[in-house]
Amino acid sequence: MGKDIEVASHEYGAKDYQDPPPADLIDPEELTKWSFYRAIIAEFIATLLFLYITVLTVIGYKSQTDPDHSTDQCGGVGILGIAWAFGGMIFVLVYCTAGISGGHINPAVTFGLFLARKVTLPRAVMYMVAQCLGAVCGCGLVKAFQKSYYTNYGGGANELADGYNKGTGLGAEIIGTFVLVYTVFSATDPKRNARDSHVPVLAPLPIGFAVFMVHLATIPITGTGINPARSFGAAVIYGKEKAWDDQWIFWVGPMIGAAIAAIYHQFVLRAGSVKALGSSRSNA
Amino acid sequence: MGKDIEVASHEYGAKDYQDPPPADLIDPEELTKWSFYRAIIAEFIATLLFLYITVLTVIGYKSQTDPDHSTDQCGGVGILGIAWAFGGMIFVLVYCTAGISGGHINPAVTFGLFLARKVTLPRAVMYMVAQCLGAVCGCGLVKAFQKSYYTNYGGGANELADGYNKGTGLGAEIIGTFVLVYTVFSATDPKRNARDSHVPVLAPLPIGFAVFMVHLATIPITGTGINPARSFGAAVIYGKEKAWDDQWIFWVGPMIGAAIAAIYHQFVLRAGSVKALGSSRSNA
Amino acid sequence: MGKDIEVASHEYGAKDYQDPPPADLIDPEELTKWSFYRAIIAEFIATLLFLYITVLTVIGYKSQTDPDHSTDQCGGVGILGIAWAFGGMIFVLVYCTAGISGGHINPAVTFGLFLARKVTLPRAVMYMVAQCLGAVCGCGLVKAFQKSYYTNYGGGANELADGYNKGTGLGAEIIGTFVLVYTVFSATDPKRNARDSHVPVLAPLPIGFAVFMVHLATIPITGTGINPARSFGAAVIYGKEKAWDDQWIFWVGPMIGAAIAAIYHQFVLRAGSVKALGSSRSNA
Amino acid sequence: MGKDIEVASHEYGAKDYQDPPPADLIDPEELTKWSFYRAIIAEFIATLLFLYITVLTVIGYKSQTDPDHSTDQCGGVGILGIAWAFGGMIFVLVYCTAGISGGHINPAVTFGLFLARKVTLPRAVMYMVAQCLGAVCGCGLVKAFQKSYYTNYGGGANELADGYNKGTGLGAEIIGTFVLVYTVFSATDPKRNARDSHVPVLAPLPIGFAVFMVHLATIPITGTGINPARSFGAAVIYGKEKAWDDQWIFWVGPMIGAAIAAIYHQFVLRAGSVKALGSSRSNA
Repeated sequence: MGKDIEVASHEYGAKDYQDPPPADLIDPEELTKWSFYRAIIAEFIATLLFLYITVLTVIGYKSQTDPDHSTDQCGGVGILGIAWAFGGMIFVLVYCTAGISGGHINPAVTFGLFLARKVTLPRAVMYMVAQCLGAVCGCGLVKAFQKSYYTNYGGGANELADGYNKGTGLGAEIIGTFVLVYTVFSATDPKRNARDSHVPVLAPLPIGFAVFMVHLATIPITGTGINPARSFGAAVIYGKEKAWDDQWIFWVGPMIGAAIAAIYHQFVLRAGSVKALGSSRSNA
Repeated sequence: MGKDIEVASHEYGAKDYQDPPPADLIDPEELTKWSFYRAIIAEFIATLLFLYITVLTVIGYKSQTDPDHSTDQCGGVGILGIAWAFGGMIFVLVYCTAGISGGHINPAVTFGLFLARKVTLPRAVMYMVAQCLGAVCGCGLVKAFQKSYYTNYGGGANELADGYNKGTGLGAEIIGTFVLVYTVFSATDPKRNARDSHVPVLAPLPIGFAVFMVHLATIPITGTGINPARSFGAAVIYGKEKAWDDQWIFWVGPMIGAAIAAIYHQFVLRAGSVKALGSSRSNA
Repeated sequence: MGKDIEVASHEYGAKDYQDPPPADLIDPEELTKWSFYRAIIAEFIATLLFLYITVLTVIGYKSQTDPDHSTDQCGGVGILGIAWAFGGMIFVLVYCTAGISGGHINPAVTFGLFLARKVTLPRAVMYMVAQCLGAVCGCGLVKAFQKSYYTNYGGGANELADGYNKGTGLGAEIIGTFVLVYTVFSATDPKRNARDSHVPVLAPLPIGFAVFMVHLATIPITGTGINPARSFGAAVIYGKEKAWDDQWIFWVGPMIGAAIAAIYHQFVLRAGSVKALGSSRSNA
Repeated sequence: MGKDIEVASHEYGAKDYQDPPPADLIDPEELTKWSFYRAIIAEFIATLLFLYITVLTVIGYKSQTDPDHSTDQCGGVGILGIAWAFGGMIFVLVYCTAGISGGHINPAVTFGLFLARKVTLPRAVMYMVAQCLGAVCGCGLVKAFQKSYYTNYGGGANELADGYNKGTGLGAEIIGTFVLVYTVFSATDPKRNARDSHVPVLAPLPIGFAVFMVHLATIPITGTGINPARSFGAAVIYGKEKAWDDQWIFWVGPMIGAAIAAIYHQFVLRAGSVKALGSSRSNA
């Protein structure tokens, strides 16, 4: 199919493409603009809504299918419904915030885009803080609504399931986040945008589907993190020991996965971009 | 990702964007056009079809999984199927009516767009009346088709589930409607349209997904309203006391949620629009 | 939302729209072109694949959850999976055949488009014949693959479920087909195309979702026809008396629903098109 | 609907369309470019991720619903979730790799496109090798993560289910692959691209849905191959005799299905392309 696309772009005279320059490591002017603070607010609200909807779905499913209180073990939305909640919310929220903040809603995505010099360091740090705070508030809302259910049914926290060792959990998080961040890079590749100016508008759908897919595969192993803010927010509000013991897996794994995706995309798929990643390092 | 979009719009010379003027509070000329009455008819038919399909799905699910009559508790479409029915119908109907009436199909959406001065007062009022009548007729059709099932299986009415207090129900409706109306504003933001002229055509998909997501999360709490016409229509046809006792939750909650979404979008995300919301008030 | 769209179309200078002339009742020249016969072949193949995939899904689900042979009543794709099979195949097949035949795959859709003067009479008749033959062959393939399962598990035939009278079944088919054909008209409205030239490419998704939604709602009542070719093909290959006794419901209902959708779209939503529908009658 | 499209393309003056010339059988220059090797790497990684996510989903589902260890037979993602995993991953991965390699991820797709002269022979061979290696590595990762589960629950290998003969399995694979490759041809038809320049971006969605649909229908028969690399990778890592005994079905079936789809598309739907297919043969 790629062949057709290339032929078509020649036939219809797409302009020569030129990479946007890499973002500065620090851009003092950025800090003086309302759009910067607006973006941080948007990330905070989006991550809050993400955790609120998804954790409420998890708790609702577990309370409806608890064999001690319900005779209908098929009555809830199922693991499939939970996977839809995570993937679908990312689709909706990336769509809503793409034009405001870039629609990260995930520190691992922010980290990957920072490595590829798409965002400045202050923006990356502030986004991550906003995402973590938003996740805490989102889980807090769920607990405020239904405290006993929240505590009884695991609080939506990420924990390694019985029978899996930490290496497996870490590997699952690395590969899962790789799938997500690789999709983000592919969907927002400016080279692609130059050819198909409407790609950014379509990008949220495959990004949401990538999240949905990874949940289908790794919910039985780790409950699926691939988003350190999501794991952190649930751990803060749930507060049980196990959620904190495994917490490092849900930070180290996603960050490694995002870094590999950034390297794969910039060095292998777009060899010309080596300079951008390189200059990031020489500045640091 | 936002960064790439902004870069791209500079590179390809998108025209400067100018906000459309806010709608007048009352526009007498509007009332003389066939397109105004056509829009009201379209809202009536769309809300009728919405309630018909969704309530039929709810009743069908409950009748097929009733342990008294069926040995197969997994035989129906499941709660997941019900959530799809609500979200998917909104996708289809917003797609079909977007060019005729704007595709509200929900008094809370109409209220939010009125606050943001996207529609006039007579249009907002007439839409809400048409939506409520459509919802009553849609539920009436379901009852006419299968009276005994309809009454036995709850009539698709929204009620607070056992174990939740009214504050929780109200909160769930407020946040759920916020998610929906925030998505509507994001998807139809004219600033976005100016850059990506095809956005209105894509808007129905994230709007439908927002409805799907909220249903996954709050069906166990309130059955999920986030649409006063939907709750009103089911209550009128079902007519049991409990549905009427809780009815205020499904009007007050969605209206508050829609108002917060309008304020968030106009004041925080698009500071330049403050004037529009302000002038709405001074006129009133 | 509609308001924004109208504003946008003014700002960006969309050309004045002009309706294409209504199709002739009979166009002798059409019959001399390869594209006419190619379209008939495409309708035949598409309807064959539609019935093959969907009936195989139905039979597979029933065989996997039969309590006499299986201990796992949740093991199949579920009613939700069946609804996806019907809706998803329509999405895929309309997408594939839209540029060749218009992607009808359903005599009710062809009938509605004929009433609205979008296709000529010979094309409408030949499409319906090809669709019915394709449906028979698709079901025949399923039976050839697994004869005993096919016969034991109902052959995917449409029948009125116990406890519903014929009027309810007819009503369910009328409204269900109305939802589908109304979506088809909305998605392919040439007035819409003039504003958003990419709409035809997006149209298959809401059309497929409309089919998915109607299946969620009416599988418990009639198994959901809304496509006379689908009901006819299954009845021919299954051949049991009940499927033939109810067969008229699955022809009369969809045709009435399609006619109402054509009238609603042409007379109410697009008053200017009255002439087109009128001239169709005066010719006939 | 096709009629509207044709009218529209006349009205808006689409340029006359001209087929790209068929690919050479061998193009020595291609082998000197980085983009060729980058495409092979992208196919390898994409097929690896495809098998990793999908087989992990299959094993996770089977381990969670095993009646010997779990009391909750509805606890997993269900067969529906497995079908989503296969279809959704193809959507995501075709979207990500379309601009790099064409997004085949399947030797049958590569074979079909080679027959239609869309890719050269060396590219087709190298893609198939990369796909098979990627599939082996993807399954290997799953086994490394959870060796006992992997072996106990069938390793995601394709095998003919009890009660079906080899002819049925072969037929199911042929028709299933036909549905997929026919969708690929329809979605990437350069004639279509000429009219709607954004089609290649939308193509991944119907292609993913085609895979989803075929899985709904044929999981009960063969577990659904329609991708020789997928069947080969699982057989290598699982290594049980039955998976190897049936392996030929999952190569011969898909290749026949892809060839029929190429013939149908090139000879029937696009008669003008006969020359392309013909010259392929005379060169060989």
